[in-house]
Amino acid sequence: MKKFLAIIRKPINWLIVALPFALFADLFHWGDFWIFIFSCIGIIPMAGLIGEATESLSIYTGPKIGGLLNATLGNAAELIITLVAIQAGLLELVKASITGSILGNLLLVLGASIFLGGLKHGVQSFDRRQAANHAILLIIVVIGLAIPSLFSHSIGPDDSVEVEALSIGVAIVLMLLYSLGLIYTLKTASSPISYSPADATVHQHGLTKGEAIIVLALSTLAVVWLSELLVGAVEHVVSNLGISEFFLGIILIPLVGNVAEHLVAVQVAMKNQMDLSVEIAVSSSLQIALFVAPVLVFISLLMGNPLTLVFNQFELIALIAAVVVAALVSSDGESNWLEGAALIGVYLILGVGFFLLPS
Amino acid sequence: MKKFLAIIRKPINWLIVALPFALFADLFHWGDFWIFIFSCIGIIPMAGLIGEATESLSIYTGPKIGGLLNATLGNAAELIITLVAIQAGLLELVKASITGSILGNLLLVLGASIFLGGLKHGVQSFDRRQAANHAILLIIVVIGLAIPSLFSHSIGPDDSVEVEALSIGVAIVLMLLYSLGLIYTLKTASSPISYSPADATVHQHGLTKGEAIIVLALSTLAVVWLSELLVGAVEHVVSNLGISEFFLGIILIPLVGNVAEHLVAVQVAMKNQMDLSVEIAVSSSLQIALFVAPVLVFISLLMGNPLTLVFNQFELIALIAAVVVAALVSSDGESNWLEGAALIGVYLILGVGFFLLPS
Amino acid sequence: MKKFLAIIRKPINWLIVALPFALFADLFHWGDFWIFIFSCIGIIPMAGLIGEATESLSIYTGPKIGGLLNATLGNAAELIITLVAIQAGLLELVKASITGSILGNLLLVLGASIFLGGLKHGVQSFDRRQAANHAILLIIVVIGLAIPSLFSHSIGPDDSVEVEALSIGVAIVLMLLYSLGLIYTLKTASSPISYSPADATVHQHGLTKGEAIIVLALSTLAVVWLSELLVGAVEHVVSNLGISEFFLGIILIPLVGNVAEHLVAVQVAMKNQMDLSVEIAVSSSLQIALFVAPVLVFISLLMGNPLTLVFNQFELIALIAAVVVAALVSSDGESNWLEGAALIGVYLILGVGFFLLPS
Repeated sequence: MKKFLAIIRKPINWLIVALPFALFADLFHWGDFWIFIFSCIGIIPMAGLIGEATESLSIYTGPKIGGLLNATLGNAAELIITLVAIQAGLLELVKASITGSILGNLLLVLGASIFLGGLKHGVQSFDRRQAANHAILLIIVVIGLAIPSLFSHSIGPDDSVEVEALSIGVAIVLMLLYSLGLIYTLKTASSPISYSPADATVHQHGLTKGEAIIVLALSTLAVVWLSELLVGAVEHVVSNLGISEFFLGIILIPLVGNVAEHLVAVQVAMKNQMDLSVEIAVSSSLQIALFVAPVLVFISLLMGNPLTLVFNQFELIALIAAVVVAALVSSDGESNWLEGAALIGVYLILGVGFFLLPS
Repeated sequence: MKKFLAIIRKPINWLIVALPFALFADLFHWGDFWIFIFSCIGIIPMAGLIGEATESLSIYTGPKIGGLLNATLGNAAELIITLVAIQAGLLELVKASITGSILGNLLLVLGASIFLGGLKHGVQSFDRRQAANHAILLIIVVIGLAIPSLFSHSIGPDDSVEVEALSIGVAIVLMLLYSLGLIYTLKTASSPISYSPADATVHQHGLTKGEAIIVLALSTLAVVWLSELLVGAVEHVVSNLGISEFFLGIILIPLVGNVAEHLVAVQVAMKNQMDLSVEIAVSSSLQIALFVAPVLVFISLLMGNPLTLVFNQFELIALIAAVVVAALVSSDGESNWLEGAALIGVYLILGVGFFLLPS
Repeated sequence: MKKFLAIIRKPINWLIVALPFALFADLFHWGDFWIFIFSCIGIIPMAGLIGEATESLSIYTGPKIGGLLNATLGNAAELIITLVAIQAGLLELVKASITGSILGNLLLVLGASIFLGGLKHGVQSFDRRQAANHAILLIIVVIGLAIPSLFSHSIGPDDSVEVEALSIGVAIVLMLLYSLGLIYTLKTASSPISYSPADATVHQHGLTKGEAIIVLALSTLAVVWLSELLVGAVEHVVSNLGISEFFLGIILIPLVGNVAEHLVAVQVAMKNQMDLSVEIAVSSSLQIALFVAPVLVFISLLMGNPLTLVFNQFELIALIAAVVVAALVSSDGESNWLEGAALIGVYLILGVGFFLLPS
């Protein structure tokens, strides 16, 4: 009961109240708009609980296995939403949300962390060496991720065997790098693909191992259910509100799946722990590129709805802009609020562009 | 009189002699070619005097307000020329000159400063932290500036409502960043958007506050008058000499408006004050991107000749190449003459390319 | 005899045995496939001997002239192969191999060095200042090299006078920079365009000056002969095996001409001399861009088969990706095996893309 109260005391978890509304909206046919709204809101706290349960588990497993847990379950909500979307054939939305996740982490979250942290603490500094190290890996990986898109146009149509082969080849290379990254995680203190969850704990619930597993299972099931509601309602929302599927995928879906993690990054920045804040943004992006993207390629193949890693030019421009900017910001080991404002500015400019793109 | 002599003693100010020739060329119809030549030459010392009067004023206003003066009047000549060109409907020339100003600052001026400074002093070093800080902001801003151009093609034709909306949206974001930059300038010693004018003073005239304001007003009026002559003559020069409007805009116009400032940057580099030299090149570029570009968007709208921030692909390539190179050069805190020669080399290669582009 | 044994003792030189096979394959008409295979294998040790003879010579000339020798003869084998290919009119293969040489150096060799060195020694560090210095020059030069390709499309067809003029203009600028680089080499200890051969000596043969010149002359002649065999057989191999001329040029030809040098870079990395390893990869790339590329433009003009510096979009993407990545990796002065694996990963992804491109 006390632990339950600890969960309830966290404002973000009040959004759990959206779950029954989502259920009623579905049962009593309130219409797709309300189903969409409530399932979006409901996913936010559920994704957060997956993260907290993972953290709690990692206390029992020790830091190394904890690092592995974080590296695999860190983007579980995102993975579930995108898998449900693949099943529904919304491949453009899936690719947009892969891009949007990385953008959100590197521009919006890092920007907000630097801006708010900087307003409170002035010039903030962090470990230049480690940040540069991780940023370099990120930029290399995103360049790898971008290459098939740049080549595919001349290789053949998006659904040709050759482009599919290219995507699978790239997914294999990314997965190999991810496996090497996991080995690296097991061997060294600071890993580029997972941040130390213990440090990130802003609230401690003191869940037992069993309770953590139950919370993990229940919140995962809830995300699966809400994702299906959300994906089922997307098409109507798109056609009625005049928002493009692409805009939903690149701005809204990633926000819904990551708000909880984003808040943690901002909170630690405001506690002047910029090292951890930068680490969350960068390692979360690396997980998307090295783990979520190739896993989606493989599973979509099994599902019979093969997803190719062919991003459109706007996704590529945004991705490359974001990693270059994030690499620069983190490579000098220092940040101030003006830098943070500039990062948010780039996110806003991209958002205006995405909004104006015709669907 | 003594102060007048101090002005006359500076070789660049001898070019004032071009003013009467520009007047006669206009009055006695010597032809557009001569009007163009003399108005170009005449703008050079007038732009310089605006800069010097601003500096003198800043002695009376203190460093903070001085920083603001520099941040707004630093590119006054450029702003006037481009406004006159907008009124004449030469929008391509205006966009080319925005690009060319940044290119000139980051490749030609920084290159010449590093080359000549390096020849005289060997390896020169400067404050890596501050240089990197400013360079990061510059690269973020230029990425923001480039995004609408990359998106506009798919959003609609250049004169569509959507592209106009995108340009205005971006201009608002840039202006907000500029305002934040001004606040930052008031709060911290080292500001990315203005260099400390007092440090840059190569010659001191000892003008009183009133004299400085008079010089500022007269030289500004002269630039307005000369800009009108220049812009009026441009079209004939373009059609008769076989030089494209684009080439004029990207290479010549920015040189004319900035020669005086460029000389200061090179002179301080040769005095081994590389910090200041890098600062002039970078902060001047930031002023163009954050202040001149959005101001032109807003004023052009009022003028009924709306300027969109849609640059062509060559401007984009050149801009991105220039900021990446300048960021790299300044992020390591060291320079040698070979690096300077390489920067000038990139400017020359771009120049050959621009020259060969068909109009 | 003892010196001959020293040469024989090196495993890579056992490949000399391919020379008689290449001869027989040519004389007894074994077919183009075998001629191609044996001439490829034969070039590997011959290119290595050119390098070793150059090193031995530099012992007698002192470090400064040795640096010049390295800067000019360092890519002699590559230069010979490409000249023979130009004579045969295989211009696409030549441009691909220029690109492929830089890619191989910056992704494969640097990646393998960092990966294997890191596995053996953990985190390896090197002189950040010097590495950054050289990387900056490299990135500036590659941007210069890339500009004509990005502009040429709008200037005219590839064989037009204007594009030819642009290529020659760029080649002149690159050659000027190379000459300045040679002057820099003569004046300073650490030069960006040549690495100190003495440091790189893994095996010492103790050749006399005369012997070194004889070895240099003989191995150069052998490379000329083998290049002619190889180039003569290329077209049949391309049409029979279904590999594109582009893939051969970008992956295979550069490997053949540089394996010996590549091995040295990896060997010194495994001896924990990362400074030298990074230097070999970067300075070798600079030699290609500043010396080999413009020399090919000038000589091809004399040959009547003018080569323009117009690379296709895939070459450009790969080049820019490679220099950015290499600059980032070397600018932080530290490397670990995961970074090396990521570099190799990008090379593999590019390789898959190049393989799938239709010819």
